[in-house]
Amino acid sequence: MAKLYVIGIGPGGKEHMTLKAIDTIKKCDAIVGYTYYIELIKDFIENKEIIKTGMKGEIQRCNMAIEKVKEGLNTCIISTGDAGLYGMAGPILELAEDIEVEVVPGITAAFSAASELGAPIMHDFCTISLSDLLTPWEVIEKRIETAAQGDFVISIYNPKSKGRVKHIEKAVEIISKYKSKDTPVGIVKHSGRKGNERVITTLENIDFDIIDMMTVVIIGNSQSSIKDGCIVTPRGYKI
Amino acid sequence: MAKLYVIGIGPGGKEHMTLKAIDTIKKCDAIVGYTYYIELIKDFIENKEIIKTGMKGEIQRCNMAIEKVKEGLNTCIISTGDAGLYGMAGPILELAEDIEVEVVPGITAAFSAASELGAPIMHDFCTISLSDLLTPWEVIEKRIETAAQGDFVISIYNPKSKGRVKHIEKAVEIISKYKSKDTPVGIVKHSGRKGNERVITTLENIDFDIIDMMTVVIIGNSQSSIKDGCIVTPRGYKI
Repeated sequence: MAKLYVIGIGPGGKEHMTLKAIDTIKKCDAIVGYTYYIELIKDFIENKEIIKTGMKGEIQRCNMAIEKVKEGLNTCIISTGDAGLYGMAGPILELAEDIEVEVVPGITAAFSAASELGAPIMHDFCTISLSDLLTPWEVIEKRIETAAQGDFVISIYNPKSKGRVKHIEKAVEIISKYKSKDTPVGIVKHSGRKGNERVITTLENIDFDIIDMMTVVIIGNSQSSIKDGCIVTPRGYKI
Repeated sequence: MAKLYVIGIGPGGKEHMTLKAIDTIKKCDAIVGYTYYIELIKDFIENKEIIKTGMKGEIQRCNMAIEKVKEGLNTCIISTGDAGLYGMAGPILELAEDIEVEVVPGITAAFSAASELGAPIMHDFCTISLSDLLTPWEVIEKRIETAAQGDFVISIYNPKSKGRVKHIEKAVEIISKYKSKDTPVGIVKHSGRKGNERVITTLENIDFDIIDMMTVVIIGNSQSSIKDGCIVTPRGYKI
């Protein structure tokens, strides 16, 4: 019986893939993914059936992957980062009936970006996506507000898109009600892959123009500081 | 000039390590870690200087690793999961002066456990450690409260230790003020490594006796449900 694997390929650089992600892709007959993500794993997909679709084709991709399994092919559907966070694991499990599904975890952008910024997370943290395509903005706003009240380190995914340029400014405005203006902020573009850039700044000095849809923004907690060009959030050890 | 690498080895199973974590360990001269973690990577450490210390020796380990770099050895210090979340990246960067440090990200327990439970995270989520060794309990309680108010998926790390058996019950009590008693809960012991066990239940039916210090607990959001033995949190797509 063929099987469906939902694979997180990590941030994009081959070096950040897990052995299991690589081995699973290698042993599958069919690979389904967003065109840009397929490009990231091109080293591993020779002689396989490749099914690519464009942006916003998520549910179509899931259905195509399930179809391939029903045809008897061991199939994987890939997400960047971890497939279980804003990825394909959820919709696949919602849609799949009578087929075996396995989720293979990967490095999500928050951790990849954090490693490039120093140690900004370290303690209790949350991720919030600013995309209101699938989630009402009021829900997102409530999460931003409660995360800031709880002094979580906050990792913002999807901070901007073409049609959604001001959400990140609104988010920072809400966060600034609770966090000091000196709170360290890390902005990482193309984390863990080619084209990687990072900026370290503070909550009051964010240059919103450098943020785009390929960016992750990490905002520290009340204990975070900047040291030698890194953001460091202490765990609480006596140093 | 020798360099210090802070490496997240993932949940423990070799298959969940990244290529970069493996390659970096292989190229280092000295490996520093908690005894149990060194055991997990024993396939890669032949002919290296190994420095192991017991539990609560975190700062001692950091200082020993920095010392090895100053002696001219390329050194890595390892954490399970991701070194940048409740790991060694923070204390290393706090302590290090005049040496080059690189953080190598890894799969943290929340994602490994999530992959074993189906797709319980999927949407905005947070991690909260219940260990009050380094963090005042009031701070932890405030985070539990605000995370539940914001309807985040909540991943609980360090739910119990020998001297701290009731914190998880208190946490669930707080969460139950805001989340329905039917909210799906996944309890995973030894996620992503030998001895792995998982239980899927609901907020009102948690068996606290099965939770120990090797366990991660994932509590869904208001949209999460249980399907075919998996927890699934929807992203919001029309299915």
